[in-house]
Amino acid sequence: MPQNMADELLDAIDEKKNPSVVGLDPRIGRVPEHIKKKAKERASGPFEAVKLAFIEFNKGIIDSVKDIVPAVKPQMAFYEKFGSQGVQAMEKTIQYAKKNGLIVIEDIKRNDIGSTARAYAEGHMGDVEGIEEKNRSPFDADMLTVNAYLGTDGVEPFLKVCRENDKGIFILVKTSNPSSGELQDRTIEGNGKVYELMAEMTSGWGEELVGEWGYSSVGAVVGATYPEEAEKLRDMMKNNLLLVPGYGAQGGTADDVIPCFNDDGYGAIVNSSRGIDYAYEDDEEFGPKEFDNASRKAALQMKDDIMK
Amino acid sequence: MPQNMADELLDAIDEKKNPSVVGLDPRIGRVPEHIKKKAKERASGPFEAVKLAFIEFNKGIIDSVKDIVPAVKPQMAFYEKFGSQGVQAMEKTIQYAKKNGLIVIEDIKRNDIGSTARAYAEGHMGDVEGIEEKNRSPFDADMLTVNAYLGTDGVEPFLKVCRENDKGIFILVKTSNPSSGELQDRTIEGNGKVYELMAEMTSGWGEELVGEWGYSSVGAVVGATYPEEAEKLRDMMKNNLLLVPGYGAQGGTADDVIPCFNDDGYGAIVNSSRGIDYAYEDDEEFGPKEFDNASRKAALQMKDDIMK
Repeated sequence: MPQNMADELLDAIDEKKNPSVVGLDPRIGRVPEHIKKKAKERASGPFEAVKLAFIEFNKGIIDSVKDIVPAVKPQMAFYEKFGSQGVQAMEKTIQYAKKNGLIVIEDIKRNDIGSTARAYAEGHMGDVEGIEEKNRSPFDADMLTVNAYLGTDGVEPFLKVCRENDKGIFILVKTSNPSSGELQDRTIEGNGKVYELMAEMTSGWGEELVGEWGYSSVGAVVGATYPEEAEKLRDMMKNNLLLVPGYGAQGGTADDVIPCFNDDGYGAIVNSSRGIDYAYEDDEEFGPKEFDNASRKAALQMKDDIMK
Repeated sequence: MPQNMADELLDAIDEKKNPSVVGLDPRIGRVPEHIKKKAKERASGPFEAVKLAFIEFNKGIIDSVKDIVPAVKPQMAFYEKFGSQGVQAMEKTIQYAKKNGLIVIEDIKRNDIGSTARAYAEGHMGDVEGIEEKNRSPFDADMLTVNAYLGTDGVEPFLKVCRENDKGIFILVKTSNPSSGELQDRTIEGNGKVYELMAEMTSGWGEELVGEWGYSSVGAVVGATYPEEAEKLRDMMKNNLLLVPGYGAQGGTADDVIPCFNDDGYGAIVNSSRGIDYAYEDDEEFGPKEFDNASRKAALQMKDDIMK
């Protein structure tokens, strides 16, 4: 087994012939009724019910895509929204996905000053001290997303955990949302755009973590909604994997993600969340009780669409 | 009771004659032994033990400073590090602080695209939907810190919750850490520095939420470690409260925070975490069992130092 997370991810992409990742973004209003009904019967409070519903929903999706995709990307906001019960659903989801051979990219976009960033890095993918003993991280994700507005000393604690535990991170470089240009597209005197500076820093942070495939365990988030910027960034960050959100529900197409890949066909992993998770809502073949089959079909369609 | 969170905070600062906030950053290695021993005896697992220890430690500090300071600022990273159990300690800490009349600034530095940012905003200070019913946020903090690298559409969901629930946020403008200048101090063509652009955007986001004191519920994080930048930012953001970390353990002094205040003596709230929480470690008067008294003494010293 590779000792470098980028290698592990690329091996999995290669094995499954699929550079896509399924986002696990559970929204309680869109979870099928039969799951919610069962969860409500078993739970002793409203947030526990949400937790149980999320776990069952995610297990269904994981089971249905585990042989197709190399990785899943649970988005922390949708779990944390429900407090400690929601966070338990995140812990269980990560455990279940890993047990089923999937790489887990935990989308948390954390950021803070050094001593605090260390708590996030250790908490999500390292070792954490207890009262007497050392424990494994309660999340133990494989890779995290990180916001680097605070600069190197806010990123270094994440790099340290990557080095010590063979983990990986993706730095927000050019995000997929409509307003991302307000700051990220500004031109810095003598330094290109803000997102280019961030790309340059990301490339530097990643140098020491380049694996056998030639890619670093320090990657970058680059939105599929900005293909021109992606093309430029692909050139600037030859050794960095791009995690590409924005495909599907956010409007990005298969053509839009092409510039994110290198000529060898590697170098990027494309995420879709809503388009896979809630595929059953628009699928005439599968109803809510077969939401997992609808997700599988959508995941296969995405694979074909990207690999065409 | 004021309907604007900035007014509420300024009323509390005025009443207590103290523009300082105690950061609640529990680190298990520095929690007094007697608390850890008791927690370990009562808990059924290592993370539950940490949770119990954090709750008791924080209650001790809250009880000892509640008549002195207007607000507390728990830092999410130190709780989240221990997963769902740690997050439970955060929930209980916020509840206890609010019950004791303190305003709670939850330091989370969250950021994401609009639909996801909404989950963070509602989860931490709004209403959240359940399977059938609507619930109050499991955290229900009064104010949050927010990272705005993603621009307006990542901030708007937080503003919406501020409007609807009379809450507040602080946007990261110029952070206190050594590397903050790598991005934040860069000069943007025709627009000053990155932190000035962020200040300008913060000022705009806050316009609709200005209260009777003349300050907005949308404030800015400006580090005490950069007094020259703070002076410039104070001028640029006349209607925004500054949340000032970096005093004490990070090296900022009372002189350094002076530029953060307006001439009327208002406009900023200065945070100290480690210097208050672990005051007992360096205090010859109070031992570990009187950590709360040592924290009270340190909080009073900080007040005197800033108000001198």
